[in-house]
Amino acid sequence: MNSEIKALLEEIKTYNTDLYRHDLLWTWEKSDDELKCILSMARLLMQMRKENISAKVFDSGLGISLFRDNSTRTRFSFASACNLLGLAVQDLDEKKSQIAHGETVRETANMISFLSEVIGIRDDMYLGAGNKYMREVGAALDDGYKQGVLPQRPAIVNLQCDYDHPTQVMADLAWLKEYFGGLENLRGKKIAMTWAYSPSYGKPLSVPQGVIALMTRFGMHVSLAHPEEYTLIPEIMNVAKNNAEKSGGKFEVVKTMDEAFKDADIVYPKSWAPYAVMGKRTELLKQNDHEGLKELEKKCLANNAKFMDWECTEEKMKLTKNGKGLYMHCLPADITDVSCEHGEVAASVFDRYRVETYKEAGYKPYIIAAMMLTTRFPNVPEMLAAQVEKARKRIKF
Amino acid sequence: MNSEIKALLEEIKTYNTDLYRHDLLWTWEKSDDELKCILSMARLLMQMRKENISAKVFDSGLGISLFRDNSTRTRFSFASACNLLGLAVQDLDEKKSQIAHGETVRETANMISFLSEVIGIRDDMYLGAGNKYMREVGAALDDGYKQGVLPQRPAIVNLQCDYDHPTQVMADLAWLKEYFGGLENLRGKKIAMTWAYSPSYGKPLSVPQGVIALMTRFGMHVSLAHPEEYTLIPEIMNVAKNNAEKSGGKFEVVKTMDEAFKDADIVYPKSWAPYAVMGKRTELLKQNDHEGLKELEKKCLANNAKFMDWECTEEKMKLTKNGKGLYMHCLPADITDVSCEHGEVAASVFDRYRVETYKEAGYKPYIIAAMMLTTRFPNVPEMLAAQVEKARKRIKF
Amino acid sequence: MNSEIKALLEEIKTYNTDLYRHDLLWTWEKSDDELKCILSMARLLMQMRKENISAKVFDSGLGISLFRDNSTRTRFSFASACNLLGLAVQDLDEKKSQIAHGETVRETANMISFLSEVIGIRDDMYLGAGNKYMREVGAALDDGYKQGVLPQRPAIVNLQCDYDHPTQVMADLAWLKEYFGGLENLRGKKIAMTWAYSPSYGKPLSVPQGVIALMTRFGMHVSLAHPEEYTLIPEIMNVAKNNAEKSGGKFEVVKTMDEAFKDADIVYPKSWAPYAVMGKRTELLKQNDHEGLKELEKKCLANNAKFMDWECTEEKMKLTKNGKGLYMHCLPADITDVSCEHGEVAASVFDRYRVETYKEAGYKPYIIAAMMLTTRFPNVPEMLAAQVEKARKRIKF
Repeated sequence: MNSEIKALLEEIKTYNTDLYRHDLLWTWEKSDDELKCILSMARLLMQMRKENISAKVFDSGLGISLFRDNSTRTRFSFASACNLLGLAVQDLDEKKSQIAHGETVRETANMISFLSEVIGIRDDMYLGAGNKYMREVGAALDDGYKQGVLPQRPAIVNLQCDYDHPTQVMADLAWLKEYFGGLENLRGKKIAMTWAYSPSYGKPLSVPQGVIALMTRFGMHVSLAHPEEYTLIPEIMNVAKNNAEKSGGKFEVVKTMDEAFKDADIVYPKSWAPYAVMGKRTELLKQNDHEGLKELEKKCLANNAKFMDWECTEEKMKLTKNGKGLYMHCLPADITDVSCEHGEVAASVFDRYRVETYKEAGYKPYIIAAMMLTTRFPNVPEMLAAQVEKARKRIKF
Repeated sequence: MNSEIKALLEEIKTYNTDLYRHDLLWTWEKSDDELKCILSMARLLMQMRKENISAKVFDSGLGISLFRDNSTRTRFSFASACNLLGLAVQDLDEKKSQIAHGETVRETANMISFLSEVIGIRDDMYLGAGNKYMREVGAALDDGYKQGVLPQRPAIVNLQCDYDHPTQVMADLAWLKEYFGGLENLRGKKIAMTWAYSPSYGKPLSVPQGVIALMTRFGMHVSLAHPEEYTLIPEIMNVAKNNAEKSGGKFEVVKTMDEAFKDADIVYPKSWAPYAVMGKRTELLKQNDHEGLKELEKKCLANNAKFMDWECTEEKMKLTKNGKGLYMHCLPADITDVSCEHGEVAASVFDRYRVETYKEAGYKPYIIAAMMLTTRFPNVPEMLAAQVEKARKRIKF
Repeated sequence: MNSEIKALLEEIKTYNTDLYRHDLLWTWEKSDDELKCILSMARLLMQMRKENISAKVFDSGLGISLFRDNSTRTRFSFASACNLLGLAVQDLDEKKSQIAHGETVRETANMISFLSEVIGIRDDMYLGAGNKYMREVGAALDDGYKQGVLPQRPAIVNLQCDYDHPTQVMADLAWLKEYFGGLENLRGKKIAMTWAYSPSYGKPLSVPQGVIALMTRFGMHVSLAHPEEYTLIPEIMNVAKNNAEKSGGKFEVVKTMDEAFKDADIVYPKSWAPYAVMGKRTELLKQNDHEGLKELEKKCLANNAKFMDWECTEEKMKLTKNGKGLYMHCLPADITDVSCEHGEVAASVFDRYRVETYKEAGYKPYIIAAMMLTTRFPNVPEMLAAQVEKARKRIKF
């Protein structure tokens, strides 16, 4: 057994957690111990795979993926996590995006779950609706399980909602933990979560919200910057503020990219839509006002264009700690002169950190797998210890 | 070993069956013993899963799903059944609905079957074409196997055709068997299979046909009611009549919902299209007469609207045995004030029986799995006994 | 152990191969020993399955299918191969066909590969782009693996590009080897690869190109015939010429179907688009010139129509060796009076050889599986020997 695996197996036993049967919907609903446990389990699963040790705890069972918005990266991460644990993926394809509710949600949730172990949901298009939908599905599953309709209560994993993107930001944190050599080393580090210009419109708020809510947990100094109107959901701003206070970290909102980048150890420049616009969009969608939606998009793109200088350039990177701040992105980034004329980041900056952003993304399948396990089973440290003990080979030769 | 599992293992050995290599297309092609065997195997598979005993008899192999009409419930049931037995699902997506035949069917059937163990087909849109298509696929597979093209003859499971919906109605029967405490207890029970109003058009005839053909098998009293023109395929009416005579049950056609509901132990109110309309629709489709199809739909919806009072209300439920008849539905039901303004059933009635309808649906994955096994293998009781004996855990810890 | 399996296990050890970590993109990049090894491994996998011996070498892992053109046969073959070896298929669905490049390709290649073992790609629509794309993906994976982003380097299998269709033509060769009783028996045999009329437009050049490049490898006499302008990529013509010289075979281009069919042991009549047209089509597509594309299609179909007599009729078959030449096709064939009014082959000819064409196709899943294994692992003969030794049953009873 390699020594990191051994240490991780010991470590995950020490946390005081209550993750079993509580869906993974928002990081701020979880305790520090719980998040630490997930981070270490994800790392353990990654190391087990490297050592060719099977993590297949299911002999059979379905993992359902329900994407109400496009996805390639998260879809593959979810499929990889399911497969790693022994589940077959079955897509629930609703054909057209919709705000379903009531009996339809309750019934569908039960009908797809008779032999299902986990449901991954992305629903990030409608402010005030995405996370609500996930909780409605959860309540339907609770009831179905209680009534004896379902032989098990499938775990729900939030694959991005209107509030949070927990699998992304936990992967981000796992990467930072690796990069800086431990969670403790993040204490006092400055991370700049900044808006950046992109020629597209209506990007969800979940990543910046997820980042400020999570990175304030472990003593980091989170500096949020955006053009005035590109605010986030006020509720989450409070979460970040409170987290920073509790953890001994810091949370500030500044007015310019420069200010946020100043002496930052880490920068995370990324485009998003203004909170107010997202709210208006939901209203228009509910009213099926397609003319209004087009109008809104046009206005927003015009407004975006005023902030083209919010770009992560080489010059801006020089402002970071020793000019060597770590660039992060959830990918795909809008790269100037590569994927578009003007984008979030200069080509040379992205190029220098490409491998790092790929490694950041590489944690996602394992974070999802850890979330599935801990939500679905009460005794995951024992399960993984037994799996390592048995050392069944993933590739047989 | 739990005692129900033990009893079921004993029971399934006692039946005189010839299911191997005969596709599961219509229940009326199967003997009473064969149907009883499938019901008990389904229940056994359900209990095995509850006891965490793996039913995976395939180490690898494909299960092909071919849906020529939309489906969520049956799609998931089929995927669940495949997964339970160890098969990976591969969808055959024909992109657009079509009435294929001849060489195309023969070739495709063989091309997708080199490593396939089972093919589930839904083809219910065209009267006179759906089941015919399944049999054409079956003949192509027979020939491919005989000629040495295929190393095995994949089993075909009818996931709904123009005549029957065997996986649905067998799940219905499995549920009735559980609800009333045994197949023998169904003898003499009255079931009302009645048409009900729905604001939609062109629903297949397969469920009412499947119900009257199957429920007359075991001594039940089946009372069919529908507005005059909403007749079923005459051939199936004869099947139901003959079955009732043989089984000592009863089959009657009455003119009103009230009459059917009177003293019924079970009611199954559900919308369907008139036989004559379905026939005309097939003709128009074959001629690609889209104008004619629109015209037909308009006429039908207008006609439907004359029978809005065919609704399963609280008042109608009072007519049933002691006012406590069991409400059944294949789901999704058109629920008044919930999924539509006027529907098949009142919200309060549906609400009271929601859990029951969910449990009814919960049998479907296991019914499909039992059908797959019995069609594909000659020695299923021995296989399942060995599987229970070995008691490999589905979830490993 | 059956004697053929034993002999094949011995045989595959004797070849001098360097297949590991070299993607399977063109047959002409592989040595004779390498191709022979793949043929025999495919046959071995086929025999193992017949004997109910599991070939599952992966406990988990993803196989990615990326189809940039429609496919049923190859899609199922790829899914079957993945499943046979223990991989779950995950489709990468790009929604719309596109000529992606640069950072997008690099990033996507890495993002989908964290837990992936093999990637099958079909990209045959754009002359000069399809194979190039595969190599770009390969370079991205090489880099990702080198940089520590990916824990393994997934193998790429070409499921049809603009140049070659290696899984098809290797299956063709495996079939010829079986039909004629060994690769050595193909020496001196004449195969007519001829154009044939079809009422469709723009069929890829990859099959005829793959056939002339591969069949010239083992001493066969390849006779290529097509209407004057229906030429192939000049580069491949040279490959075929050189191969024939090296192998002691023969490669000739003749002007008529009759001449090619004369005394042929095998005929492979199939439609394709002229090289020049395919080139022009790529240009027009790049320019998004939809008007021009329609114009081109119209012109081409009109031109095609001049060569309706290029049909594999009974009369033409009489020209073959003793009138008994073997008819081959990659399927689906355009059959006169069956799938179209005038097609590539007369119904009676196709009918006589239907079973043979099905058997030809039946090799494809095993060829793909052999390609996956040899590209992904350095020690496949040992792996398969161990798997046969262990004799884990694929169907457990």
